[in-house]
Amino acid sequence: MQLTILGCHSATPRENYHTSSQLLKINENLFLIDCGEGTQIQLRKAKVKFSKIKHIFISHLHGDHFYGLIGLISTFRLLGREDELNIYGPRGIKEIITLQLKLAKSWTEYPLFFHELVSSKSEIIYKDDFLTVKTIPLDHRVYTNGFLFTTSSNKRKVNSNAIKGIKLEHYHYRQIQEGKSIKLNDGKVLNNEDISLKPDPPKKYAYCSDTAFNPNLVQLIKGVDLLYHESTFLEKHSELAKTTKHSTALQAAKIAKDACVKKLMLGHYSNRYSDKEGFYHEATKIFKSVILSEDLKSFSI
Amino acid sequence: MQLTILGCHSATPRENYHTSSQLLKINENLFLIDCGEGTQIQLRKAKVKFSKIKHIFISHLHGDHFYGLIGLISTFRLLGREDELNIYGPRGIKEIITLQLKLAKSWTEYPLFFHELVSSKSEIIYKDDFLTVKTIPLDHRVYTNGFLFTTSSNKRKVNSNAIKGIKLEHYHYRQIQEGKSIKLNDGKVLNNEDISLKPDPPKKYAYCSDTAFNPNLVQLIKGVDLLYHESTFLEKHSELAKTTKHSTALQAAKIAKDACVKKLMLGHYSNRYSDKEGFYHEATKIFKSVILSEDLKSFSI
Repeated sequence: MQLTILGCHSATPRENYHTSSQLLKINENLFLIDCGEGTQIQLRKAKVKFSKIKHIFISHLHGDHFYGLIGLISTFRLLGREDELNIYGPRGIKEIITLQLKLAKSWTEYPLFFHELVSSKSEIIYKDDFLTVKTIPLDHRVYTNGFLFTTSSNKRKVNSNAIKGIKLEHYHYRQIQEGKSIKLNDGKVLNNEDISLKPDPPKKYAYCSDTAFNPNLVQLIKGVDLLYHESTFLEKHSELAKTTKHSTALQAAKIAKDACVKKLMLGHYSNRYSDKEGFYHEATKIFKSVILSEDLKSFSI
Repeated sequence: MQLTILGCHSATPRENYHTSSQLLKINENLFLIDCGEGTQIQLRKAKVKFSKIKHIFISHLHGDHFYGLIGLISTFRLLGREDELNIYGPRGIKEIITLQLKLAKSWTEYPLFFHELVSSKSEIIYKDDFLTVKTIPLDHRVYTNGFLFTTSSNKRKVNSNAIKGIKLEHYHYRQIQEGKSIKLNDGKVLNNEDISLKPDPPKKYAYCSDTAFNPNLVQLIKGVDLLYHESTFLEKHSELAKTTKHSTALQAAKIAKDACVKKLMLGHYSNRYSDKEGFYHEATKIFKSVILSEDLKSFSI
């Protein structure tokens, strides 16, 4: 997994601050998470191939998380996209997008599917051979979900050391990955356990923005490799965090600690803070493995 | 009048290309014309005081002319705006904006008025003591209006040379502007025509984007000081201009010439052209006074 932060600031985009959007690369597939105004420009800056984005997950219908979606959908059309596009987001998102396409007389020529979310419980919303995406119900001023991305592979890995010097056909590799023993052209049989390694352990990435401090999260994100948890405010503005249903850096760290995650990434910073270091210092008081999200920076998970 | 180009490119925003938006300053009042995605960021770059924008004119509901509107309206709210905001645009614009505000549970606390346009004839849509705004019906794939801004002042100007050395009260200035003769404190009467100059001639700015080549425009924009006319294409792509209902630089120049405008500004460039000089060369073949619009450049009218 590789995560690219397209925007990690809250409220309104500025000259050098972009609002929420992230791109998650799993194998060669791209998953977009949230889509603030100007996301398509950030995607261009990050040199992303637009056509590789097949699934877009929208956490909630506040502007700093989805005002860039209609523009991106339109740009896909202008670029001659043919592949289907799937949008996952709160009920209402389909009406907003289709109303704009209708009034512009600009229906997409590619298939556009909406998967509207209404459940207040965690549910699986996407699944393929390698990835499962579950919602993480969050506590915000409007209906909001975070997303838990879990890779899964039961494919064993070919042990390149063990097959050195052995001439294999293309189908042998598939058989090894499927856990089968193989028969070489000279009739010799190689046992699977001698030429393969255990599948990669699953990787987990949890995206939690926007949310008030919410201990119910902990059970859903136990032990994830990376937790992105919003930290709109610092503790000195904890009252503001409470009334606006956002979190402080310290609260994000508490969740990370209680969920025993491997790493915590902070973001969704309020523009009132000129310096991001305060977030880092506050969170590391109680949880050591903290990184700060930054527009256009990529991270391996 | 001062015109600042916030974006002058068509279709999709890029890293260094912004879609349609212009800011017209008349005295101290700011009028926004179109509002492509990212316009609020361009306004910040141009160091514009957001609260001074009271009226926004939207030509049509294609994304490159209004996808930045909902973000700007939301930002006004987050900035604590109190003054009313007036939006002029095609029928449907109110539904798009209010649907998004409703689903975000983020109604503006400032008064927001929509003036939906449906007429296919030119009509006055705004008027105050100094300015009249009329629609210019355009010929595009969806219902589209250009806008004609005409300043009007019947106030005479105080002739500073003629009143040199004369002690005037504050109210004398108003009387002179109103065309009245004045009586000084010593009883002496000064005739208005001796101490005043004729009012400034009206200034006219016509914004015409997007449109197919349309000679019907000519009568509506006769003699304007500045005509902004879209030139999405060059003549070598005139067939494309025809099918998409856009204009070439040559066609824009024909309109400018026939309407005897003082200056023509080209814009709404297709991103297929890396160099803008071709637009200039094509237009100046038949009309000499041509300028090229450029993102974040300002022009006096």
